[in-house]
Amino acid sequence: WLPSFVELKGRSRPQGRRVLPIERTRGSEILFGVAPCSMALSQARRDLFRLFLKQSVGPQRLVSSELVLQAAARGVPVLHVGRRELDELCGGRVHQGVCLEATPLRYKRMEEDEGSDGESTNRQLLWLVLEQIQDPMNLGALLRSAYFLGVDRVVTSRRNSCPLTPTVSKASSGAMEVFDVYSTDDLRSFLKAKAAEGWEVVGTVSQSETVENVPVISCLEFRWNKPIILVIGSEGDGLSLETQLLCHQMLLIPSGRTLHPGIESLNVSVATGILLHSICSQKLRKVLPLQQQG
Amino acid sequence: WLPSFVELKGRSRPQGRRVLPIERTRGSEILFGVAPCSMALSQARRDLFRLFLKQSVGPQRLVSSELVLQAAARGVPVLHVGRRELDELCGGRVHQGVCLEATPLRYKRMEEDEGSDGESTNRQLLWLVLEQIQDPMNLGALLRSAYFLGVDRVVTSRRNSCPLTPTVSKASSGAMEVFDVYSTDDLRSFLKAKAAEGWEVVGTVSQSETVENVPVISCLEFRWNKPIILVIGSEGDGLSLETQLLCHQMLLIPSGRTLHPGIESLNVSVATGILLHSICSQKLRKVLPLQQQG
Repeated sequence: WLPSFVELKGRSRPQGRRVLPIERTRGSEILFGVAPCSMALSQARRDLFRLFLKQSVGPQRLVSSELVLQAAARGVPVLHVGRRELDELCGGRVHQGVCLEATPLRYKRMEEDEGSDGESTNRQLLWLVLEQIQDPMNLGALLRSAYFLGVDRVVTSRRNSCPLTPTVSKASSGAMEVFDVYSTDDLRSFLKAKAAEGWEVVGTVSQSETVENVPVISCLEFRWNKPIILVIGSEGDGLSLETQLLCHQMLLIPSGRTLHPGIESLNVSVATGILLHSICSQKLRKVLPLQQQG
Repeated sequence: WLPSFVELKGRSRPQGRRVLPIERTRGSEILFGVAPCSMALSQARRDLFRLFLKQSVGPQRLVSSELVLQAAARGVPVLHVGRRELDELCGGRVHQGVCLEATPLRYKRMEEDEGSDGESTNRQLLWLVLEQIQDPMNLGALLRSAYFLGVDRVVTSRRNSCPLTPTVSKASSGAMEVFDVYSTDDLRSFLKAKAAEGWEVVGTVSQSETVENVPVISCLEFRWNKPIILVIGSEGDGLSLETQLLCHQMLLIPSGRTLHPGIESLNVSVATGILLHSICSQKLRKVLPLQQQG
């Protein structure tokens, strides 16, 4: 069958003519934006049904040709549609002229993972654990940073975490398409097990928060000498008390001025980026030439 | 006068009854969200007309009482309204039960600024210059980070930059209300003048970009030994060529893995947070006790 909207495409369509809804393959979702669609086409992690492209001119045309080549290589049909059909397909989000119909991505379950047993705990491993991150923009930004900065694994708490939606993929700038994301049903047992294996569990705290029974240090003082799990809580609530109590220490990002009460924290993805970079720089310093000493 | 919607408030209002539009003071705008409204009430930078609050229960009630006290101290009338009136007031944005009618905040003009002449160039000063940041969410996140991390001044290019809207204030978590933001009509002349005064102008570059005639170094190798201007470009386009050529050097955030083509950068506010923290940590290291050496 051919979707009914195809007859409507083109510039000659009269203003105000109704955009007919596009029939979707059962169980599919609509990825939107250049990076998520291009990355999904480059990987074999989703079943792909149709690529929807806006007829484009100018520099956007090059991007389109690239996507058409990728789709051809994967045997994915390409349909040229109007802007309004794309708006409709992705619910008015910023699609940059491209949508892709595909099966959803799911979290990998830590419980089913066989690979980690063989990993030596002597390696400089860094895992990022996300507790109840519900905002898809924050989750996407966190995945993008984790991927870029070299986090070995991201694990989320299954309970109260945002699923791996197309919005998360867009906010991750496509990193979600190439980077496995794990989840666990029982965050507490998972952290306890890793601690027993010799991992260091590190939480975060902002200047206005207090933590009992867990030492707080500046991220500048932190030394990386065993595999680390960095645990991040949600923007509003931070880490749960149960998780805080499983941390060996809490990292604080020092502020550079006296802060007005009520503006005493950073955005969660900015704070996580700073902490990951601060930790990773200890590894990077060893391999980079230092050209500008003194 | 009393706005007409006041008669409509309360839980007894029948479902579906139309929300009458609220008349606005000429030239005012509507701030939304707890942090922007609370910070605006705490400062004398805007004229404030009315505080709109949702009747609240639970923990939100404490926040409301605090806002009512702040409004009383400033002599700002408080109106209790329904959720739908608040939705209408701020165009459906996330208001957290509070809106504030106020005069807009404007950029301070660098050209009118008299203060900087007296500042010694020997101090460890850090200014952040934003070139053509048009996305209000990014601008807000950048202001929040700049404020937290201790940037001495933020300067934007007047041309093609987003104005200081309520959305920017919300994204800055209220930092925009307490932190002066400057703009200049002529970014190039401004950078040239600061360079002539002995400032170091530092740009940024991602791994996939090339820059001619400007040395590129890792942010880990950067040494802070004179007043710095860090120049940031927009997420899509980066710095203009003209601005790049005015930079003494370009900073690169090293990635922690081999990156897939197309996902070779960080979100602009995350990248800026990492660069500012990386620069500031050189100042902070000197004043913090190092408890965990070795």
